[in-house]
Amino acid sequence: MGMIGGGKDAFIGAIHRIAANMDGQIEFCCGALSIHPDIAKESGKMLFIPEDRTYLSYEEMITKESAMPADKRIDFITIVTPNFAHFAPAMMALDNGFNVVIEKPMTFTIEEAKELKKKVDETGLILCLTHTYSGYPMVKQARAMMQEGKLGKIRKIYVEYPQGWLSKLSEREGNAQASWRTDPKKSGKAGAMGDIGTHAAHLAEYISGLKITKLCADLNIVVPGRALDDDGAILLKFEKEASGVLIATQVAAGEENALSIRIYGEKGGIEWRQHEPNTLLVRWLDEPAQILRAGANYTNVLSSFATHNCRTPGGHPEGYLEAFGNIYRNFAQTLLAKLAGETPTKEMLDFPGAEDGVRGMAFIESAVASGNSTEKWTDFIV
Amino acid sequence: MGMIGGGKDAFIGAIHRIAANMDGQIEFCCGALSIHPDIAKESGKMLFIPEDRTYLSYEEMITKESAMPADKRIDFITIVTPNFAHFAPAMMALDNGFNVVIEKPMTFTIEEAKELKKKVDETGLILCLTHTYSGYPMVKQARAMMQEGKLGKIRKIYVEYPQGWLSKLSEREGNAQASWRTDPKKSGKAGAMGDIGTHAAHLAEYISGLKITKLCADLNIVVPGRALDDDGAILLKFEKEASGVLIATQVAAGEENALSIRIYGEKGGIEWRQHEPNTLLVRWLDEPAQILRAGANYTNVLSSFATHNCRTPGGHPEGYLEAFGNIYRNFAQTLLAKLAGETPTKEMLDFPGAEDGVRGMAFIESAVASGNSTEKWTDFIV
Amino acid sequence: MGMIGGGKDAFIGAIHRIAANMDGQIEFCCGALSIHPDIAKESGKMLFIPEDRTYLSYEEMITKESAMPADKRIDFITIVTPNFAHFAPAMMALDNGFNVVIEKPMTFTIEEAKELKKKVDETGLILCLTHTYSGYPMVKQARAMMQEGKLGKIRKIYVEYPQGWLSKLSEREGNAQASWRTDPKKSGKAGAMGDIGTHAAHLAEYISGLKITKLCADLNIVVPGRALDDDGAILLKFEKEASGVLIATQVAAGEENALSIRIYGEKGGIEWRQHEPNTLLVRWLDEPAQILRAGANYTNVLSSFATHNCRTPGGHPEGYLEAFGNIYRNFAQTLLAKLAGETPTKEMLDFPGAEDGVRGMAFIESAVASGNSTEKWTDFIV
Amino acid sequence: MGMIGGGKDAFIGAIHRIAANMDGQIEFCCGALSIHPDIAKESGKMLFIPEDRTYLSYEEMITKESAMPADKRIDFITIVTPNFAHFAPAMMALDNGFNVVIEKPMTFTIEEAKELKKKVDETGLILCLTHTYSGYPMVKQARAMMQEGKLGKIRKIYVEYPQGWLSKLSEREGNAQASWRTDPKKSGKAGAMGDIGTHAAHLAEYISGLKITKLCADLNIVVPGRALDDDGAILLKFEKEASGVLIATQVAAGEENALSIRIYGEKGGIEWRQHEPNTLLVRWLDEPAQILRAGANYTNVLSSFATHNCRTPGGHPEGYLEAFGNIYRNFAQTLLAKLAGETPTKEMLDFPGAEDGVRGMAFIESAVASGNSTEKWTDFIV
Repeated sequence: MGMIGGGKDAFIGAIHRIAANMDGQIEFCCGALSIHPDIAKESGKMLFIPEDRTYLSYEEMITKESAMPADKRIDFITIVTPNFAHFAPAMMALDNGFNVVIEKPMTFTIEEAKELKKKVDETGLILCLTHTYSGYPMVKQARAMMQEGKLGKIRKIYVEYPQGWLSKLSEREGNAQASWRTDPKKSGKAGAMGDIGTHAAHLAEYISGLKITKLCADLNIVVPGRALDDDGAILLKFEKEASGVLIATQVAAGEENALSIRIYGEKGGIEWRQHEPNTLLVRWLDEPAQILRAGANYTNVLSSFATHNCRTPGGHPEGYLEAFGNIYRNFAQTLLAKLAGETPTKEMLDFPGAEDGVRGMAFIESAVASGNSTEKWTDFIV
Repeated sequence: MGMIGGGKDAFIGAIHRIAANMDGQIEFCCGALSIHPDIAKESGKMLFIPEDRTYLSYEEMITKESAMPADKRIDFITIVTPNFAHFAPAMMALDNGFNVVIEKPMTFTIEEAKELKKKVDETGLILCLTHTYSGYPMVKQARAMMQEGKLGKIRKIYVEYPQGWLSKLSEREGNAQASWRTDPKKSGKAGAMGDIGTHAAHLAEYISGLKITKLCADLNIVVPGRALDDDGAILLKFEKEASGVLIATQVAAGEENALSIRIYGEKGGIEWRQHEPNTLLVRWLDEPAQILRAGANYTNVLSSFATHNCRTPGGHPEGYLEAFGNIYRNFAQTLLAKLAGETPTKEMLDFPGAEDGVRGMAFIESAVASGNSTEKWTDFIV
Repeated sequence: MGMIGGGKDAFIGAIHRIAANMDGQIEFCCGALSIHPDIAKESGKMLFIPEDRTYLSYEEMITKESAMPADKRIDFITIVTPNFAHFAPAMMALDNGFNVVIEKPMTFTIEEAKELKKKVDETGLILCLTHTYSGYPMVKQARAMMQEGKLGKIRKIYVEYPQGWLSKLSEREGNAQASWRTDPKKSGKAGAMGDIGTHAAHLAEYISGLKITKLCADLNIVVPGRALDDDGAILLKFEKEASGVLIATQVAAGEENALSIRIYGEKGGIEWRQHEPNTLLVRWLDEPAQILRAGANYTNVLSSFATHNCRTPGGHPEGYLEAFGNIYRNFAQTLLAKLAGETPTKEMLDFPGAEDGVRGMAFIESAVASGNSTEKWTDFIV
Repeated sequence: MGMIGGGKDAFIGAIHRIAANMDGQIEFCCGALSIHPDIAKESGKMLFIPEDRTYLSYEEMITKESAMPADKRIDFITIVTPNFAHFAPAMMALDNGFNVVIEKPMTFTIEEAKELKKKVDETGLILCLTHTYSGYPMVKQARAMMQEGKLGKIRKIYVEYPQGWLSKLSEREGNAQASWRTDPKKSGKAGAMGDIGTHAAHLAEYISGLKITKLCADLNIVVPGRALDDDGAILLKFEKEASGVLIATQVAAGEENALSIRIYGEKGGIEWRQHEPNTLLVRWLDEPAQILRAGANYTNVLSSFATHNCRTPGGHPEGYLEAFGNIYRNFAQTLLAKLAGETPTKEMLDFPGAEDGVRGMAFIESAVASGNSTEKWTDFIV
């Protein structure tokens, strides 16, 4: 693995490294960790990267790594720069034969997203998009139950993602995370909807297996002085007559990272909360609700997708880093299988990719368009 | 107290009686408990009502009770008939000098609601509307904290009311509650939005102290064969730049009566869940969240409105019936004070009335209008 | 109903009145509400008791009521005085043909308890002991599941009752409740073990259906200056090889009234917490845990004992007062059936009586004996 | 790092590897992974260990690694064999200058434990004992609050560790974990008390800062056919007049790994539950309870010991593997500091060591002695 972005003090780069390290299957070999040479070098040192593979730009990294012999060269590149700097290194990486892991949202614009997907399709390389929350075992359990029809036809999907960390104008107080995320030049057309709304939308579609078809968005700038939405709510229509609500806000003072989803079908419903991710609550129409727990050794309850993504028995809580690690592990297992000429299992192949990235960008486009419209419903157009 | 409606097998009538009995201040003296004479008589017997005060119509009851001497005559009449049969007995009761307790929604149409409010204003009599959930002590605590500005300027209001009991076409299977509630002739213009959406809207306005100004509604008939909405979600705009979301659905399979509300201000937020009503979760921007508990003996934390509406010390859970009882008790205390020529305290006066009833009907009107509109926003017009 | 004790400012008297009033089946007719004549009279007035039935001593009340004609005379007497003043009025009431409701612990000493039970047996009258927590529907559900063998042979019983209200020497600061409860002359041999340990022991035996056979107690006076235990823990042996732990403390600072119980059998376990009493958590060996909810309309899950003791559908939380009310209602239904010459149902008959009272006193005796012993195990002797 | 034990299919070996890998500071270089040569070799291959450092016995590994040049040789050895096979490799490792990480309980007997501690003291090498649960940030927060006196003088300590996985005689059904843990020859004098009771006792002493002085144990073999206790409860006395209860059972059917602890002082109490480890509930005598969350950015609430052991901001749940990783990370940071001639910070030094190991073994000895005694109290003797 080589990493672009993610120098010291970056949030998500450190997370990617823990996720990649965790299972002992991925070696962190090189990096272009910062556009500031000093930070790049210092970060490389801290991370035990050899000096000669500590690069000062992604171009240098991709060029030099390409020139290395196959058995020494990295197999994939992880891109953890701010949104506006995803596309160019991703394209160059693919052009040079490297598989890619990329932080969401996949690109800055939907046009870039489509172009990148086209490149992935052409090259046959693997692009993995780190929609972390789809890596949780009980999210996969929920999806499996939906696909098996356990809850009957899906009727309602409520997904919400309240955070409170932008309740004040923190971007003016030296908060680097807040700074680029609230800057349209670095973040893109949307603020909260791009940063966390895309996670919520992805989770809704991933678990339900249904695509959003129409939306009606109320996007707000709650904290005066901002250029991008820091809050929003969207009424949703899905395929097959399902409907729902998506809430994404970063001004819910006191909330941490309280992503949650509830989906109801004819026969029952599921509820999953990211703060307690090892539990899936399943309600039934005429029976008591059940508490499904990750890692538990029930007889014939947990899907292979859930068990494949656990490392410990029930009662040993796994968390955000393990969910992130699952995406890396599934990507790595798929890559290893491919390199070995084997067919990856369906459980390995279950990680987000370029198609999800395009839908994510389309979600941002549609949400912003609807937010600006006086019409009630706006089509979700990819 | 005399009761109109609420014969044996009626749900809400029995609830009203427990609520009224609980504190030993209200005597149940007479009733016109059913339009079916047999049921009316049998119900009267079961409820220990003297035969000569077991009436066969509300007209008979009001006429005969009016004719009784002041010291024997009832002081107020409780109306627990289906929605379409609220207005006429309420008007007749007021016209004959009786105070009135009335189940929500107050009337069948908004015109009736306005006329009834006018009558209340003219007569100076008391009308109490049983929006039960505003009777909970921790709801009152939340309201008090808002009014005192503890959470700063209010930004977001999320209220939801998921139920699952109409997930099937129960009205065709002999469920009497389902039957009238899904019948436009008995229930009114709205189904779920009238039955439970009005509770949610009232709770949001009651706690926040802010009025809804605009709404954007998606109302659905999820279960085929119904004539009225059994599901809906509404984007809301409130006074003073607050905004929010209201969800009301009766097809969330497996949900009981899961009314909940979250309100966020600049400094923190509150969360209250009806299923565990003695707890109010208070989040703070830079401090740990707090768990406020009804009846607890904190130093200077609980408002007089919260403590006035508790009967037991902390850890002795009070519930739905006590919340209902609080509305009756406050109404009764206000009435007793008035009869005694005294001024009721502000805590006693804190129960819903005709104004809330008019706003409830306006909410139904506006929600249905918005549901039918292709425009995003519809004004909330009273 | 006539009441002995429970004048204004008394805690448990007010609770008894609400519980008795709630269902409209019991009329509060007379009282000897205080040994202070002024308080007795004032309390009678506040509670709408006729002046001629507001008595100044229990002897006066029992004597005068006995002399009244059968159709005017009360059917039963409720005794809510401090522990030391239970026995005498209870004996006199029974001797004069009145049924009795009595606050727990039943008497001051075990000798009194046995004598009282003997009197009950001789007279054939009904004695109801208000072990409130056995009145909750989900407690009854747990008991029913045990009796039906749903969880297999019972192995472990953990019951705990932490409170924090005696963390300070409140009895020296004018707290009337603390004052008599910490006074050996009014409370009896035990403090916390008598006040709340007896509830815990009763709950354990009631749900499990197993009797305690041996105990090993560690009783402590944590707050210096007290004469009675304010804290304790007991290792327990039950019939049929079950064992367990009982914790009762009144110095767990910050705890309210956090009675809870967990019982495990070969096939699964139950957990019930008084603070959220409408939920019964049921764990299974190889299946997901289930959340059973009071009032829910499952297919064939809730026992008739659970449904008989609910007043509302699922999601309308009932609490402490309803649990108390259930004891009164079952007692009253049993009494009415008896007066009508009918056979009460097994659900009606399910309220604590003299036998439970004797075991409660034996528990206190045994716990104190064990607390004073250097032997590990002390027999539970009745 | 070199590993002794932990071949494929071993539970705890895999956990140790993830924990060690996670932060990219520890390289897994060699192993004597099984006493079965085939498994040792196969496991080495799976774990990317070079063939020439895949050893077939711990003696071979220690001998050969000692002979390597300092810059290639491992710095420490992790021992994850069953209890009976801890002592010999640990002694040999220390004798050859290797630091040691060792799974708990430290040894098979208390004599071994004392000898091992002596060796650690003599060599000046570091021994790290993986009492995982002390690695959680909110456990460290609880400890810090105790040490700062935030809760006043400690009065009560309740720690419990219910599991259900030995509810059946699984050791006869091919469960390898169950097999050695229930075998006195491999596990030691105690079953449940050794396996999980030691964790509970360590947690109680670690958080409270108080040492156990006396105990009164009830140890049981609940499932017939076992040779060691699978269940137990212990009354505890601590230094400074604190007392408490410890429950450890592996027959609580349906329980996972539900370690929890509550400690009450004069001013309030803490509660921590391993299943939701990012939350610390803090109760106060006269104020609402607070919910402290790992990673949250409160003003002056979280201790440096809590923040040092977090990798992510609030709302990104960390779990069992991160807690385990914290022990490795603190050990590694201490080791690196030492190697660099620097002084480790107090936060780095905060991991369990030989002293904890001796106390753990003494706990097992004392618990078994008390279990066999008819005296109520047995001294805790080290």
